[in-house]
Amino acid sequence: MIMLGMICIRACSRLAGCRTATRVRSVHSITGITAAQIDEEVAKLLELKAQLGGDDGKHQFVLKTAKGTRDYNPKQMAIREKVFNTIIGCFKRHGAETIDTPVFELKETLTGKYGEDSKLIYDLKDQGGELLSLRYDLTVPFARYLAMNKITNIKRYHIAKVYRRDNPAMTRGRYREFYQCDFDIAGQYDAMIPDAECLKIVHEILSELDLGDFRIKVNDRRILDGMFAVCGVPDDKFRTICSTVDKLDKMPWEDVKKEMVNEKGLSEEAADQIGEYVSMQGGMDLAERLLQDQKMCQSKLACAGLSDIKLLFSYLQLFQVTDKVVFDLSLARGLDYYTGIIYEAVLTQAGVAPVTAEAQNGAPGEESVSVGSVAGGGRYDGLVGMFDPKGRKVPCVGVSIGIERVFSIMEQKAEASAEKVRTTEVQVMVASAQKNLLEEKLKLITELWNAGIKAEVMYKKNPKLLSQLQHCEESGIPLVAILGEQELKDGVVKLRVVATREEADISRADLIDEIRRRTSEA
Amino acid sequence: MIMLGMICIRACSRLAGCRTATRVRSVHSITGITAAQIDEEVAKLLELKAQLGGDDGKHQFVLKTAKGTRDYNPKQMAIREKVFNTIIGCFKRHGAETIDTPVFELKETLTGKYGEDSKLIYDLKDQGGELLSLRYDLTVPFARYLAMNKITNIKRYHIAKVYRRDNPAMTRGRYREFYQCDFDIAGQYDAMIPDAECLKIVHEILSELDLGDFRIKVNDRRILDGMFAVCGVPDDKFRTICSTVDKLDKMPWEDVKKEMVNEKGLSEEAADQIGEYVSMQGGMDLAERLLQDQKMCQSKLACAGLSDIKLLFSYLQLFQVTDKVVFDLSLARGLDYYTGIIYEAVLTQAGVAPVTAEAQNGAPGEESVSVGSVAGGGRYDGLVGMFDPKGRKVPCVGVSIGIERVFSIMEQKAEASAEKVRTTEVQVMVASAQKNLLEEKLKLITELWNAGIKAEVMYKKNPKLLSQLQHCEESGIPLVAILGEQELKDGVVKLRVVATREEADISRADLIDEIRRRTSEA
Repeated sequence: MIMLGMICIRACSRLAGCRTATRVRSVHSITGITAAQIDEEVAKLLELKAQLGGDDGKHQFVLKTAKGTRDYNPKQMAIREKVFNTIIGCFKRHGAETIDTPVFELKETLTGKYGEDSKLIYDLKDQGGELLSLRYDLTVPFARYLAMNKITNIKRYHIAKVYRRDNPAMTRGRYREFYQCDFDIAGQYDAMIPDAECLKIVHEILSELDLGDFRIKVNDRRILDGMFAVCGVPDDKFRTICSTVDKLDKMPWEDVKKEMVNEKGLSEEAADQIGEYVSMQGGMDLAERLLQDQKMCQSKLACAGLSDIKLLFSYLQLFQVTDKVVFDLSLARGLDYYTGIIYEAVLTQAGVAPVTAEAQNGAPGEESVSVGSVAGGGRYDGLVGMFDPKGRKVPCVGVSIGIERVFSIMEQKAEASAEKVRTTEVQVMVASAQKNLLEEKLKLITELWNAGIKAEVMYKKNPKLLSQLQHCEESGIPLVAILGEQELKDGVVKLRVVATREEADISRADLIDEIRRRTSEA
Repeated sequence: MIMLGMICIRACSRLAGCRTATRVRSVHSITGITAAQIDEEVAKLLELKAQLGGDDGKHQFVLKTAKGTRDYNPKQMAIREKVFNTIIGCFKRHGAETIDTPVFELKETLTGKYGEDSKLIYDLKDQGGELLSLRYDLTVPFARYLAMNKITNIKRYHIAKVYRRDNPAMTRGRYREFYQCDFDIAGQYDAMIPDAECLKIVHEILSELDLGDFRIKVNDRRILDGMFAVCGVPDDKFRTICSTVDKLDKMPWEDVKKEMVNEKGLSEEAADQIGEYVSMQGGMDLAERLLQDQKMCQSKLACAGLSDIKLLFSYLQLFQVTDKVVFDLSLARGLDYYTGIIYEAVLTQAGVAPVTAEAQNGAPGEESVSVGSVAGGGRYDGLVGMFDPKGRKVPCVGVSIGIERVFSIMEQKAEASAEKVRTTEVQVMVASAQKNLLEEKLKLITELWNAGIKAEVMYKKNPKLLSQLQHCEESGIPLVAILGEQELKDGVVKLRVVATREEADISRADLIDEIRRRTSEA
């Protein structure tokens, strides 16, 4: 304990040097202290704190996962695997490669990419060395990867966990650790072809996952910015007004307008003009109509966006997905880095989903109730350039599947369904009714494993037949290979079908083929 | 800048209070300082440091991943996927379920589980709320999961990244972020049956991955402890002597002995006796011989371990894996939590592997050169009990596949091989030789995608045929479906085999079947 005090004194006396700093105007010329010295003192103080903590009363051990995180149990993992297979299958069908990046990045890599949301980034403790942060999404690491490796063309998917120190509302399927499933196309290509493929992919995935009806809303940042300009929003208010528009899927128009006028200081007139535009929804026809709109036409930016929306819809028609896609001028999306087309998919069937938000566009209850976003994305042509020393741009467009919400829905469906979720794929249980047959069972299961059959045996010398059969019932194992003295003598195995309790003697030589035949997916 | 100095002064004057601490003997009675105050001062100092850093010359943006981490590019991911499929296939064949846990745990969950290695744990910054650390392995989170959910029986695998602030030697396949592939069996079962299955799994996986010859060394913590006791090692030196023995795979016996005697203060006589035992290798016969050994028999612990080794080998014989398994008394393994059987698999073929360690057992060069551990594990019957409020134990045994080293070897093999690693699975490229056929191509690819065919089209309105064919060559796409005015008129598609340049007109109605037929894995 005397030692403790000494550390403390040493820490203080070293720091005394920094008092002189008041007299100098430049940090550079503080002679008494350096960053390394501060590190040292900080380490000592933290050590002192650790020792204080160690003595501070009885420590209560809490058995839990970190706030906002969860374990996945085997059942949840089985569902997760199924969902991933569907999604990865689609990404591969579209010719995507995959990459992986570390879970943490240099802190500065993430700095200045997320606007206000930066406060939600998890930082690692400074334990000496680099300052690190957990990734907040997969898009910024992707852009860093492209710039670092000077890649100008790639179509890749990336499925991994990202981290946000958000206020978790876990009952609604929101976590601080959660998966993102991203598909992105980087490269200088002809307009709207990759953008249309991203929407085709969302359409395929949501259809295949069978989550109920959905709608994909599409808009363009340039149309939004142009609209703000022609409605008389001052340039420096585009961003903040945009983030207010983004709330239209959760708030009625009246409240959104109030925020614009009262909080953000927009004129009532400008707000009303915006209100008129953001209530518009349609398809290619709407884009054509707006291209004729006297006011909208004043903005070249908006016109470029509208022409692209038109082109996009022509490709979407060829892809046969226009049934679900809506051009919706109220769609804004929060992230700073979007530069063109943006989109968001929402489930429109009530009942299946965890979130019941207010309906759209100031008419609560008028339309089918939105149940929250399950996919979103857009074009971000400037992000990679932020990482390139020479600012060279690599145009990108991508989509992120909101997989956690999909998991929630699938879990609820599994709960509700009578069908049991299997957590293993075991085809056969090697069992015996008599004692002292462990050796024979191990010999048999070795044959099965070596032939690639998925098989289990109980880790008991003499388990009861009943408990062996019960295990099969519980885990959904379809077959039991039963060994007994008689079977060994006859060179056969009694193969039992768990569901029907049918039994048949199968010669040892035919067993593997017979198991394969009976368990092959028809 | 004046403000900076002020912060600094305030930090110092607050800390001045702690000088009084030298006079008191208990941390509790330091009246001048609390943990919260230290936090505050630390925050101020770090802020000061950040500002110092900010002014220290121009800030150079560094485009890199965090030290000791790496990205996986598409080629590496293709290899990784193949390796995972082999390993997961084996785990599933043995009836394992899978779980997942968060990447970070409460710091206290990891505390006291890793001995000296605890200093390698990554802590998250205290941003308010819980103190968190990145997981160091998958075993402790597994034990936490079992205790938290009161699970007493499970056979599970878990493949995920773990984090260690180690000095990375990345050229040798060691990282600060790396995968672990764990298979564990928890439950109260008859002796050595699950333990033997773990070794069977290691045998299957290493054989299937085709990494060259390997050897699985087996020992038992109880044999080590018993041996130390009968050789006259004082009780309080078991752990430290054990960790010295663990170095035998990297150091010759003479150096190990020197460390025991000179650094750890063991008597020369005791060291020599240990030296005799740890040079022993064999199979069931060695276990039998040692059970007759006058000295070893004095330890009941050692006898129990030896009997279990004997039983283990009898099961390994039934599993047909004794060809690769060696009972090796020099195997110690570092981790604190092992209580019984321990094992480690090493590749024994030179050339393929990144690490060339000194040969084993004081006879450098005598045996085939070890190329480092690729799997390891053992029994840990006490770990789950550390998390249970009532200390209820759940016996566990498991194995961890050293997947990063496996990746390294597979990558080297791929480098060396003439065969190209494909990073996508695209079956067909939809192409055209003429202009203005984008719409027709998009129509055709929609048909293909909707039928589940993996297909690509260039994101250009009028790409050159040559560049389309080149893309196929580069990505290993086997087929090209070529559209032209004539083909459209005739209702056919020209299907070209990239490898042979053969072309055939296929009617539109037959195209999907034809592509399937030609790209089905034979």
